[in-house]
Amino acid sequence: MNSAQSNAHLLDAIKSEAEKINGLISSFLEGRPEGLYSSARYLPSLGGKRLRPFVTVMCGRMLGAPEEPLYLSALGVELLHNFTLVHDDIMDHDDYRRGHPTVHKVYGEAIAILAGDLLFAKAFEAVSVAEKMSGARGVVQKLVDAAIRVDEGQFLDISFENRENISIDQYLEMIGLKTGALFEAAAVIGGLIAGLKDQQQISALAEYGKNLGLSFQIRDDYLGVFGDPSKTGKPVGSDIRRGKRTAVTILASQLASKETLELMKSVSGKESAEQAVLTQIVSGLKQRKIDQKSMELASSFASRAIEALTRFPESHEKRLLVDLVNYSWQRDS
Amino acid sequence: MNSAQSNAHLLDAIKSEAEKINGLISSFLEGRPEGLYSSARYLPSLGGKRLRPFVTVMCGRMLGAPEEPLYLSALGVELLHNFTLVHDDIMDHDDYRRGHPTVHKVYGEAIAILAGDLLFAKAFEAVSVAEKMSGARGVVQKLVDAAIRVDEGQFLDISFENRENISIDQYLEMIGLKTGALFEAAAVIGGLIAGLKDQQQISALAEYGKNLGLSFQIRDDYLGVFGDPSKTGKPVGSDIRRGKRTAVTILASQLASKETLELMKSVSGKESAEQAVLTQIVSGLKQRKIDQKSMELASSFASRAIEALTRFPESHEKRLLVDLVNYSWQRDS
Repeated sequence: MNSAQSNAHLLDAIKSEAEKINGLISSFLEGRPEGLYSSARYLPSLGGKRLRPFVTVMCGRMLGAPEEPLYLSALGVELLHNFTLVHDDIMDHDDYRRGHPTVHKVYGEAIAILAGDLLFAKAFEAVSVAEKMSGARGVVQKLVDAAIRVDEGQFLDISFENRENISIDQYLEMIGLKTGALFEAAAVIGGLIAGLKDQQQISALAEYGKNLGLSFQIRDDYLGVFGDPSKTGKPVGSDIRRGKRTAVTILASQLASKETLELMKSVSGKESAEQAVLTQIVSGLKQRKIDQKSMELASSFASRAIEALTRFPESHEKRLLVDLVNYSWQRDS
Repeated sequence: MNSAQSNAHLLDAIKSEAEKINGLISSFLEGRPEGLYSSARYLPSLGGKRLRPFVTVMCGRMLGAPEEPLYLSALGVELLHNFTLVHDDIMDHDDYRRGHPTVHKVYGEAIAILAGDLLFAKAFEAVSVAEKMSGARGVVQKLVDAAIRVDEGQFLDISFENRENISIDQYLEMIGLKTGALFEAAAVIGGLIAGLKDQQQISALAEYGKNLGLSFQIRDDYLGVFGDPSKTGKPVGSDIRRGKRTAVTILASQLASKETLELMKSVSGKESAEQAVLTQIVSGLKQRKIDQKSMELASSFASRAIEALTRFPESHEKRLLVDLVNYSWQRDS
């Protein structure tokens, strides 16, 4: 298959798995009081690519995991992800996600905290039932570990806001926790449900997941500045306008011209920043090859993710896992 | 032993177990980034009676549980309790707890949300390690179940704020979730770590814990209105001044005189309410025997808790569990 064909094939597979996960989410988040459960269903019902549970299902299926506990554990991973989004949006005072008002905007902060806590608890319910059903060991512990590291990553992210001169290594450590840890758990949990005991293979799944997460996040950062607004749904130079700390803006702080940096400072935090200035900044960054350098960074993690899969024999699922890496660091939206 | 002696004996035992739990909390909440972990240690380090882990340890020891996983699981129960306090204080806009500023007052709301989430994750870490170490089943699931029910209870509590005419049954359902569920889990988890498989005995531990929790909470409500300020550390009629919905204020809404109810309304939410008016309200409530009726309610749950223990043979731990019930619904602070 050529690249376009394998991409279409991957997107079909992602979509089909997402539908199964969506069905599980709806039924797993039924309960009373209805007001609480509907606030917990709100964000997951707005959609999302469901890439993390896709990773769990593909890693597990590649290794022969039984389907029912595999999907339950994948559901747990997705619920944990949604929990972090609900609480992060409160902490970051974000009003919109996936094009809709965030949970705390719709239900108020108190209920949003509770909705997040419920998603957290239900995530553990899903994986603990999956662990019991499959007879696997360490599944709950792996999700606990991810929850702790995501929490540490979010703390670092918040603490970076008030600091100058964050290095790219500090940034990578932060996203390794905030984004990498859950992708890592997603991959490893699939293997554990399959009964995987070989420590080197478990580490290979961890490497795959973590590096996939990093390349995914850095591509996100790339799109936040260089993305095509008609595809990303975000305005030109969106992350610059918002003054966000990302791989691109950190590379810029080290490599951009004084003029570009001053322009960046002048528009930071200004929703009303002029389009022309943002276009000028983007072109200044491209002149210093910051687009290229951030893509090299994403590519290096993507290579490591693919490299980690060489420990496993060829299979349909393995090919999808490779395609997912290539999609993640080169996607347009 | 007479009642005063058994009380002194119980308080010594509680204190000695609390010291062990405190040691575990400190070492279990070490980590980096230090700022995050210190915000998570802040509330647990302010003390507390540690009654929930006491219940876990006594139920487990009564049934021959191995000590190390038993303490770890008790630690998990206490961490979950502290998680709920941190988040509840944010939701309820409470500025003080245990005589000190609350976590969000000291660290800000964003870090308080994260500190709570970390306590939540560490609670699951503790019980999942305890489950693995002891070879027990269902421990994680029991804590998940409690976390979900506590969340549902807090949602009901918040939703009651904007409703008139909450019945005592609705109130009892709410505290059964918000307070009862974790006491229930505390007792059951002790039994599970001991390898308890007999469903009737597991149900008896659940009955014990839940009813202990209810009698404990209703005594709390009693003290919030009729307590001696020199012992509770709270001003006269504290819950009336704060306009809180409790067993006492709900009984009052049904049984108090029109005059007392009007006085209650006049001081509700007023920090500056006059002492004389509060004394008059308290005496009006006593005239209608609302102090007595709330104590009868607490006593009925206490009896059920003690009754549930008849399924177990006599032992030192069982006597302490009985003494704990009698203390909980009759304590002065």
